[in-house]
Amino acid sequence: MKLGDLGEDRLLDLLLRCLSLKNAVVVGPGDDCAVVEMHDRRKLLVLKSDCVVEGVHFLQGTNALDVGWKAMMRPLSDFAATSAVPQFALVTLMAPEQTEVAWVKGLYRGLRRAAKLFEVGIVGGETSSTPGPIAVSTSVVGFVERDRRVSRRGGKAGDDLFVTGRLGGALKRKHLRFIPRIVESRWLTKNFSIHAMMDLSDGLGADLPRLVRASNVGFKIEMEKLPLTRGATMNDAISEGEDYELLFAMSRSDRIRLQQRWTKKFPNLPLTRIGSLSQLSTKDYQLLPRGYVHFQQSS
Amino acid sequence: MKLGDLGEDRLLDLLLRCLSLKNAVVVGPGDDCAVVEMHDRRKLLVLKSDCVVEGVHFLQGTNALDVGWKAMMRPLSDFAATSAVPQFALVTLMAPEQTEVAWVKGLYRGLRRAAKLFEVGIVGGETSSTPGPIAVSTSVVGFVERDRRVSRRGGKAGDDLFVTGRLGGALKRKHLRFIPRIVESRWLTKNFSIHAMMDLSDGLGADLPRLVRASNVGFKIEMEKLPLTRGATMNDAISEGEDYELLFAMSRSDRIRLQQRWTKKFPNLPLTRIGSLSQLSTKDYQLLPRGYVHFQQSS
Repeated sequence: MKLGDLGEDRLLDLLLRCLSLKNAVVVGPGDDCAVVEMHDRRKLLVLKSDCVVEGVHFLQGTNALDVGWKAMMRPLSDFAATSAVPQFALVTLMAPEQTEVAWVKGLYRGLRRAAKLFEVGIVGGETSSTPGPIAVSTSVVGFVERDRRVSRRGGKAGDDLFVTGRLGGALKRKHLRFIPRIVESRWLTKNFSIHAMMDLSDGLGADLPRLVRASNVGFKIEMEKLPLTRGATMNDAISEGEDYELLFAMSRSDRIRLQQRWTKKFPNLPLTRIGSLSQLSTKDYQLLPRGYVHFQQSS
Repeated sequence: MKLGDLGEDRLLDLLLRCLSLKNAVVVGPGDDCAVVEMHDRRKLLVLKSDCVVEGVHFLQGTNALDVGWKAMMRPLSDFAATSAVPQFALVTLMAPEQTEVAWVKGLYRGLRRAAKLFEVGIVGGETSSTPGPIAVSTSVVGFVERDRRVSRRGGKAGDDLFVTGRLGGALKRKHLRFIPRIVESRWLTKNFSIHAMMDLSDGLGADLPRLVRASNVGFKIEMEKLPLTRGATMNDAISEGEDYELLFAMSRSDRIRLQQRWTKKFPNLPLTRIGSLSQLSTKDYQLLPRGYVHFQQSS
């Protein structure tokens, strides 16, 4: 069997299932970030590694600054999902020998600019030549207070489901220029009890099923409420991916307080209740889908 | 200018020089590992990221188990250089869709086997398709006690220079099967004051100049003392690379005690005094070379 037949989720399941995790591991493979115990009892160490590959995450000829920005912001978006504070980053660059030094300088400028926005220090780097396309792997380390950690698990039947911002149309430009919702996420966990959260990188249609599966619940989405980017279709909002917005679940009893305080705190960023979590029924579970048509049926 | 004209050291200098490092950073880019402050005052957080790329670090068709082993052990060798204890690893796999799942399973088996040897937990993973060769990026996080941290800096004129094991001939097989000298390094810093240390990944001829430059000293090597792998030439020992042995500097007053205790503790691993550090003279500095001939002249 080939990798292409398997899909990323099943591949990661397969590969990481049999890891013998230490007691210190709070959240292991499969969630947005790894979370482990550290010596300070109030805080947990948070780790995330991600990559961007030419021809997959950006096209040849893309502005180097944009590539660097994206390479740093992708793992930082997972920190937002975990409500963690990023602190240090390591960057590994794989690039062919004929790459222009000027392009690489632009790449690092983008990496630094993105890191600086969240006060992340790029503390190490490694470079390697490659006979293939340019690839940049970024690892970020930081922390989260024990009582503010959020993961995909923990959503409860009856919870409201919210998304930040607007969905769809990111491939035109936003996927290179997005700002991870770290500030918003930190505000949320400071002021509310967030039951489950993740960032939307593969599209709501692929990501929401991951959250409900991890939380062991079903879901109902009110399709007409999905906050579409101007010019984007419902299908784009569900399937296109690279929105890097937050999807989270919290008690419906907090709904009004959240909406009021959010509007005051983040007047320029929409917050939309798109549906709710429900009891898991076998039927729901079988209908957890990728893509648009099935997704709509299951709601 | 192209990357190929620049060389890795100058590239990293260029890219990382202008990073604004936080106060918390003890050792930033350019040394074997990054070292940063953590909340526990007695310990420092240690971070390292590295990669292996098909066609560069391993040939197409290499046993997957060996590739996984190498991908994990390379950054762990940098932990040995820092005398740090590795704890957690993140693995990012970039592989074409036509890669056999069986190969990838073998890769992870190799990664896990290597991690297990040093009780490292693989806590996260990310996979991406690529139109290019297989590449594996591994990031490792751990700690070192504040008073046992070693870096390339700190070598003093008059220090003895030691290497562990034997040099040269690694490309035949050892580069895929090596065991990072973490146990040895931890023993060294527990029992001795090690002034400067690094792991030999690019060959003594490239790596020693990095250590003396960082320590701002010169060096004298007794070429006839270099511990050659059976079948390897002097040139192999200096230029071939991938030995993953330790090179370290310590006070000559500790020499006899070190040699006696080492032989008892590690009877199967040679420890060789290959020369000493000297005052830096302008002449030495200009002669710091890559490659064999110049290297010999400078000794």
